[in-house]
Formats: sequence, C-alpha cells, structure tokens
Amino acid sequence: MSRLERLIPALSWLKVYTRSDMQTDMMASLIVTIMLIPQSLAYAMLAGLPPAVGLYASILPLIAYALFGSSRTLAVGPVAVVSMMTGTVALGFAAPGSAEYLAVVILLATISGLFLIALGLFKLGFLANLLSHPVISGFISASAILIALGQIKHILGISASGHNLLEMVESLYAQLPNLNWATVILGLISIAAIHLLRKYLNPLLQALGLSKHQAQLASKAGPVLVVICTTLVVMLFSLDQIGVKIVGAVPSGLPPIALPPIDLQLARELLPAAMLISIVGFVESVSVAQSFAAKRRQSIDPNQELVGLGAANLSSAISGGFPVTGGFSRSVVSFDAGARTPMTGVFTALLILVTLSFLTGAFYFLPKAVLAATIIVAVVQLIDFKGFLNVWRYSKQDAYALIATFFMVLLVGVEAGIITGVGLSLLLFLWHASHPHIAVVGRVPGTEHFRNVQRFQVETKPSVITVRIDESLFFANARVLEDRITHLVASHTGIEHVVLMCTAVNMIDASALESLEMINDRLKSAGIKLHLTEVKGPVMDKLKGTELFSHLTGKIYLTQNQAYEALCPERTAEA
Amino acid sequence: MSRLERLIPALSWLKVYTRSDMQTDMMASLIVTIMLIPQSLAYAMLAGLPPAVGLYASILPLIAYALFGSSRTLAVGPVAVVSMMTGTVALGFAAPGSAEYLAVVILLATISGLFLIALGLFKLGFLANLLSHPVISGFISASAILIALGQIKHILGISASGHNLLEMVESLYAQLPNLNWATVILGLISIAAIHLLRKYLNPLLQALGLSKHQAQLASKAGPVLVVICTTLVVMLFSLDQIGVKIVGAVPSGLPPIALPPIDLQLARELLPAAMLISIVGFVESVSVAQSFAAKRRQSIDPNQELVGLGAANLSSAISGGFPVTGGFSRSVVSFDAGARTPMTGVFTALLILVTLSFLTGAFYFLPKAVLAATIIVAVVQLIDFKGFLNVWRYSKQDAYALIATFFMVLLVGVEAGIITGVGLSLLLFLWHASHPHIAVVGRVPGTEHFRNVQRFQVETKPSVITVRIDESLFFANARVLEDRITHLVASHTGIEHVVLMCTAVNMIDASALESLEMINDRLKSAGIKLHLTEVKGPVMDKLKGTELFSHLTGKIYLTQNQAYEALCPERTAEA
Repeated sequence: MSRLERLIPALSWLKVYTRSDMQTDMMASLIVTIMLIPQSLAYAMLAGLPPAVGLYASILPLIAYALFGSSRTLAVGPVAVVSMMTGTVALGFAAPGSAEYLAVVILLATISGLFLIALGLFKLGFLANLLSHPVISGFISASAILIALGQIKHILGISASGHNLLEMVESLYAQLPNLNWATVILGLISIAAIHLLRKYLNPLLQALGLSKHQAQLASKAGPVLVVICTTLVVMLFSLDQIGVKIVGAVPSGLPPIALPPIDLQLARELLPAAMLISIVGFVESVSVAQSFAAKRRQSIDPNQELVGLGAANLSSAISGGFPVTGGFSRSVVSFDAGARTPMTGVFTALLILVTLSFLTGAFYFLPKAVLAATIIVAVVQLIDFKGFLNVWRYSKQDAYALIATFFMVLLVGVEAGIITGVGLSLLLFLWHASHPHIAVVGRVPGTEHFRNVQRFQVETKPSVITVRIDESLFFANARVLEDRITHLVASHTGIEHVVLMCTAVNMIDASALESLEMINDRLKSAGIKLHLTEVKGPVMDKLKGTELFSHLTGKIYLTQNQAYEALCPERTAEA
Repeated sequence: MSRLERLIPALSWLKVYTRSDMQTDMMASLIVTIMLIPQSLAYAMLAGLPPAVGLYASILPLIAYALFGSSRTLAVGPVAVVSMMTGTVALGFAAPGSAEYLAVVILLATISGLFLIALGLFKLGFLANLLSHPVISGFISASAILIALGQIKHILGISASGHNLLEMVESLYAQLPNLNWATVILGLISIAAIHLLRKYLNPLLQALGLSKHQAQLASKAGPVLVVICTTLVVMLFSLDQIGVKIVGAVPSGLPPIALPPIDLQLARELLPAAMLISIVGFVESVSVAQSFAAKRRQSIDPNQELVGLGAANLSSAISGGFPVTGGFSRSVVSFDAGARTPMTGVFTALLILVTLSFLTGAFYFLPKAVLAATIIVAVVQLIDFKGFLNVWRYSKQDAYALIATFFMVLLVGVEAGIITGVGLSLLLFLWHASHPHIAVVGRVPGTEHFRNVQRFQVETKPSVITVRIDESLFFANARVLEDRITHLVASHTGIEHVVLMCTAVNMIDASALESLEMINDRLKSAGIKLHLTEVKGPVMDKLKGTELFSHLTGKIYLTQNQAYEALCPERTAEA
C-alpha cells in the first residue's frame, strides 16, 4: 500500500470499484438520505442553528470522509450529542440566530477539524482512550437527558433555555403558562407515532408480505412518515396561524463555500471546548466504525479516522456547517441497506444537494415540534441504565466514575462532567496500580506451575520465598514494591533467596529500576540473594546494561521452575 | 497494636524505652543540634525569614514528629528545597521582612500541615507516587541550581532577586558593580573551607587517631567550625563596619506560641502552592525514612508519615515557624550518631530551646555570606547529572520527563516544572499502556512453558492461536485489544480457537470487560472460540457473574498447557 493510499484510503477501494458496487451504493444512499434529511434539520435546530445549516453539514463532510476515512461503512454528519455540545458552547459567545452565533459555530468546526487532523498526523489517537467506557456511558446518558429536556420547549411551543438540569427545569416551569395547546397536541402525537412506528412498523410490514430485511429497512422511514403527515396537516389546517412554530422558508441553493474567517482571540477561547467536542465525536465515531469493521472482517486505523473526521469537519466549516462526526443510527441504516463502499456517502451528499436545490420548499410547513419529537425519541434510547447496573455489579470504582460523570454533566455541564470523569478514572487507575496484588507463590505438585500459596495446595522451600507481583513496575508502585519486599523478608525467617516472578511485569520504568536496585542492595546487606524469573523479552532487553543487571546478587532464570529446581535443591516442604 | 498506638507510634516505643536508650539518644541529639543550628539559620534566610524563625521551626515540629511519625530515625526541620519553595511563594504575596510575609509563611505551614494530615487520615499517601523518580530528580537538580544562584547575592554582598534562572542572572548582573569585596573574600574562603573540610577533615581526624566512626561524626561539624571562625573574624576586625552583612540581633526567648490567624481568602490563594510544598516535602522525607528503616529491618507506614509530617508543620505554624519536613543530611548524622528512637528529636528540640534562650547573642556577628556558603556547598551535592545519564541510557521517555521538569523549573518556576513533569509521566505511561506488547506464543518443546514465537523455537498448532497480552486490560488499551485481536484473526487462516493467555493481566476494568464481550461475540459470529488461561485469582473473582463469564464461547483453563493439550490434541506442527 503506497504512502498516498495510506493517506487517502479512497484510492485503494476506488481501484476495484465495480458497476454492481455502484448500484448497491446508490440504492443505499437513497435510503440513508431519506433518514438523514429530517435528522439534519433536527440536529441543526438542536445546535441552535437555522435548518439549512443542517443540510449544509451533510454534503461536503460526507465526501471528505469518503476520501480520507478508513471505515467502509461509517456515515458521518450532524449527530445529537455533538450538536448539543456545539449549541451549549456557542450560546456562551453569541445569541442564537445571530451572525456571530453562526461564526462561532463555524469556527468551532474549523478548530476541531484542524485539531483532529493534528492528532491523526502525530499518531495521538490513543489520547481518546482517556475516556473510559463508564465515563462515556455516564456522559451519553446525561447528555441524552439534557437534549430531551432541551427539546420539550418545542413540544410545548414555549421558549426556554439553560445549560444544566436545574436551569432548564426552572426556565421550563417559568414558561409553562405560555404553552400552545395546538403545538402540545401535535408534539405528543408525533412522539407517540414515532415511538409506535419504531416498534410495530417492522412486524406490520412483514405481515403485509415484505421480506424481513425489506421491512427492517422500510421501518427506518417511520420518522419520515410522521414528518410528512404532520407537515401536510399543518399546511392544510394552517396550524401555523394558531401558534404552531414551523421551519419556514429554507434558503434553497448550494451551501455558501468560503474560507472560514479566523478570529484568533475567539479561537483561543473556543479551543478547549473544540478539543472536547472533537474527542467526544471521535470516540463515538470510532467505536461505531470498529464494530462495523469487525462484522465485515475489515479493520480501521484510529489515526486515519482522525484525519477523516478532521477533513469532514474542515469541509463542514468551509461550507457554512457545524461540527460533524460518525453517527450510529445512520451507519446502521447504510449498512443494512447494503452499502459496500464509502461511495454511498458521496451519493448521499449529491442527493442532499439536490434536495437543497429543489425541495427546500417542502420543509416550509414542517413543524418544529415534530423535529423535537424525532430528537427526543432518538436520544431517549441513549439513556443506558442497564449498562450502569452491569458496571455497578462488576466494579464499584468504575461505577463511581460513571455516576460522577453523569451528575456533573447533568448538574454542572458537559465539560465539567468529562473532566471529572477522566480525572477520576485516572486517579482510580493510579490507586489500583499503586496498591498492586502481590502473591507469595509455590509449585502446584506434579506440574511446573506456580500459584498463590493462599489459594492453592502448593509446595515451597523454607529458604526460598517466591514473590509474584501482579503489576507492571512503574512510578505509581515503585515505592510500594520496596515496602512490601522489606515487610515480607522481615516477616519470614531463614530466607536465603528472594525470587521475583515477573510474569506480570510488562514494563519497568526508571523509577521502578531504581527501586529494584535499592531492594537488591538492601537484601544483599542482609545476606539474601535476589533472583528474577520469567522476565518478558521487551523488559529483559531494557534491563541489559543497567546497574541492576550487573549488580544483581542472584540470577535471572528463564522459567520459575528452573529457579525453583536450582535453588537449595535438597530441601522441600509441603505447604 | 491498639488503635491509639497506631495513631501515636510513640506510645509503642516509649513503653520499652530504657535508660541506655536515653543516653545514646542524648549523645546523638547533641551532635544533631550542633549541625542543625547553622542549617536552621541558613534555611530561614533561604526562605526570606529572620534567622530566629529557623530555630522556632526546629523545636515543636521535632517533638510533634517524634510523637506521630512512624520512622525511628528521620530528623525533621527546615530543609533547603522546601524552604526555597516557601520563599518563592511568599514573595508573590508580601515583601520579605514584613509582618505580612511572616503571616503568609505561617499560613503556608498551617495549610500544608492540615493537608498532610488529611491525606494521611484518608490514606491518600499513594498520591505522592504521582511524582516519578525522574521528575523528582529533575526537580531537585533544578531547584539546587536556583538555590545556589539565589545565595550568590549574599556571597557578593549585593541584593538581587528573581523567581527563575533568567531573572536571577539578570538581576545579579545588574547589581554586580555594587559588590562588596570584604564579603566576597569571606564568602569564597568559607565555600572553599567548607568544601575542603567536608573532603579532608574525616581522614585528617583518623590520622590524628580518632576511630573511623568518631572521625566521620566529627567531620560533620566542619561547617560549624567555619561558622565559628568566620564569626570571630568578623567580630575581631569588626568587618560589619565595612559592609559585611551579619545576622545581627536574634530575639532570645521562647518562640511565640499562638494559634495561626486564618485568612480564608489568602488561604484559598495559597492552597495549590501549599499542596505542592507538602507533597514535595513528603516525598523527600518518606524516601529518606524508607531507606533508614530498611537498614534496621524496620518499616514505615507512608500514611502515618503523612500524619507525622502534618503534625510537625501544624506545630511549626503554631510556634511562628515555616514549613518543615524530614531532611536527609541531618537524618544521616543522627543515624550515625547512634540515635535509637525519635526521643533524639525531643532532646534536640530541648537543646535548640536552650540555644534560643541563652545563646542567640553568639549569632550576632555571624556573617550572612557564610550561611550562604553552607547552603551553596550543601545544595550543589543535589545536582545529579550521573542520575540523569543513567535514566537517559535506560529509558528515553523517562529522560524526557526529567529534562522537561528540569528546564521548566529552571526557566519558568517550581510549580510549572512539577505540573509539567507529572502530566508528562502520566501521558507517557498512558501511551505505553495503550500500546501494549502482544505476543503470539507457542510451547517450548519438552516444557510446559510458552514463549513468543518470534523469540523462541516453540511448537504451535495451526488451528489454535495463543495470544499473550503483556498489559493489564483497562480503559487505556481496551479498544487496542479489540483492534489487535481482529487483525490477528484476519491475518491467520484456519483459526478455530483464540486463547488469551492472561499471565500478565493484573486487572480487567469495566471498559476492558465490555471489549472482551465484544471480542467474544465477534469471534463467535466467525465460528471461533475464545478461551482464557492463567487468569489470576483476583481477576477471576471479579469475572465470575459477568456476562462474559456466562457467554464465553470457550473455556477458562487453569494453565496454558492444559488448554494447549485439550484443544485439537491430534494436530501439532513445529514452528
């Protein structure tokens, strides 16, 4: 694979792109588009932007990702959580609807595009690992609640605002008297309809004779049905006259292509938020891409994904759009619709372009309450209580990180929540690593296998103590190791040899090396020899040439058993 | 050991305290005192405080630590690095010599006292592990240079200031014309004298017939000799008349006991600095305590050490002193002088009290240049270039953390340096953990031992691939594992079993558990069974009852060899 192909994965699959590929991809793109249009409009609204912007963000980004992305199935565009984050950030800098607001959003997309590309080129994708699954889960659940709450105002036909749970509830409560009954009814009916269609359309269609697969695909169009019907209702009974808010005129024509204006001062202030949005979007997207790649025995390159998403965001900024990333639901649809290559994305982009050029009039009477309904039904699925229970059952520590993130996001804000979660999981891991499990082991009779003397019936030798430390040796536990060994030696009499079984030692950093040298010296002064066994290749390579290696009082054995046989062969006691 | 004895370790050794213990401890305390007095004066000067404060900080803290500390040998009091940090912080809030300045310093001692005790009671001692050896080494070396530079003004008899290298050099250069020759000569002679005495006094005394041990002890009094001689010289030739700055009148009498006034606003501003001073002091102190404990087959309890040092700092604040911690050189002296119990600290405190009550007059003519000389000679020892070379040879990554810390401290400041160092070592560790070494292993013929197929002549089976992941499985590498396994399976044909050898897996957090479930599902859909072997007891305990445990397509074997024997027993190929 040439360097160019590595930079532009499209080149490799375009070479083998066939006519039949094109047909299936086109078919899939049609279905994706039908689903993507209402989503784009809704998520633009969620980000506090005019609906057209949602469509702008669904054209160039799809093409850019098709060129630079490494996933064959991922469908990019506006997604709920990222749109919500974008809205929250922009609100802090300008009033929704104002030109400044749009400028802030475009700058956000620009920065996160550049940031993602930089991460990718410097191979810093691993930084995304800072977000542990529990933190993400807590973050997503809380965001879903915030998003749903934020949409209720559209269902009630009132105007409310707020960055966190309390503010939102407060402002909703304050505005409650002004609610518009026509909107409420329309909204509730839409929610019910979308929910029921999601549940029963598929079996219904199958009963009507569609194949399982066709039915499954068609049922995805449920929300679109509701959108069309309600739009017609509003138009026919001109409900907009009685206070039902509608999308209104959507400027038709191509998105305004322009180099985004860079306000460095503003950029500096937006940087942290933009970085957070990028990381969150990347993590969400990469996990989606990974699971689809696995299904088709393909694989994705996280760092290339960063470049792909970065390119998508940059091109979104250039075309007056807002931050985008890979979405789960639309990827599922495109996958089920049989999309074979990223060309599906290109075709989808073209279809959106057509819509934007000729069909924007159709959205005029589309009621905002219905868009809100689609969002609410979509995000409510994201609240993952079962996942929390699993984590809680498995590991209290992880559960605490999840809970902390959840409530911080809900009560303080997205950034505070994620920072808390990341900090907490780092601290918890560090706590874990600095309280390593250290087992005194003996040989399982009749085998060459050594296990914990407290858990297994094993044989040991009185003058030999074998210690298995179940942790890499690095700064977080270097001192702890010194402590434990001193304790062990002090608490066992007649020790002549201390054997450090390194099966679990995957790394020895400079701090731990110093500690091992100290341990070696101290044992030496007590007339005790220190031996190492089962040192891993990579660790051994580094140890060679160190003072420890040359000053070690004992030997380094390939296997624990060889050491056990070699040391004081005569004496053996049943433990 | 009762809970009370655990809180106040003194109770346990006081019970068995003998008359002979008392005699040796008294003897030792005398020697420690002789060394401690000039040190206390010097370090008070280093912290920008009047000399008497140095003595105040050497009375109650010693007694408090004797009661609550867990080390039998550690000698606490003012130390160079902590004093320097205190001075740098206080300078930012008040002018040296002013009452506000002293108030700030006392508040610093109060806060760090409370902070240390809190850490101890909540068993958070492990947080100190955040400071890796390379970071500490880089920090100490840089601080030593800053300290030495900061003292040069006293040697030159000029007044200069500055928080970092550039500022200091600049201000020294600006003041150079005003240097005072008498001071310079006195200062340089003192430096030379202290240096030479440190080097040759010990052998000289041995040549004069003292025992090696006596000579060693006596030679520690070298600086004191110089202090006495130069003081006499200044007095006899009244050099103070020609511009040699002297300590001058030191108020005699007991330290002013008073509850430190708490200015909450100021306290909030001082908190970060105080926390940093505490952690640095604790780390320095605990490593000293640990090495001495090991020498005597005793052990220390880090969390109890926190309480001890916290109590020491609180009592320092109460008696108008500044932050203290365990010092290396004085602990060596007290250890060599045969100190058996912390009672040595109590006796030292009493001797300092006597000095403060009756001998302060003796310090009147003591020239500041000489105190500076003692500091310079002492801290120059701390610059550890050899240590850097070792780290550089062993691990470039650790070396980078060291270098970054060193230069940040030198050029920006102590806090920036430590924060950079800690952040960097965390990132480097995370990078390491998220790029785990994964080896495909086979059996070493004739043994039950499995090693890397690339490093050893081993036997493998075509339909079984055994993967040993050399890292705990947690959020930092959960996704990486998914990736690698997918790759491995995709790149080997005819695989029926994937065996995950968990010898190196010391922990599986919730993130990794999810990933393992996904891996299990994906392999299942490809008709491949996933097996685990050599799962550690603690990990196994947690896995029981998880979905992975119940849905696992394969088995969990006690040993890798059992799995190897059990899976497709017929076919075997020489790799």
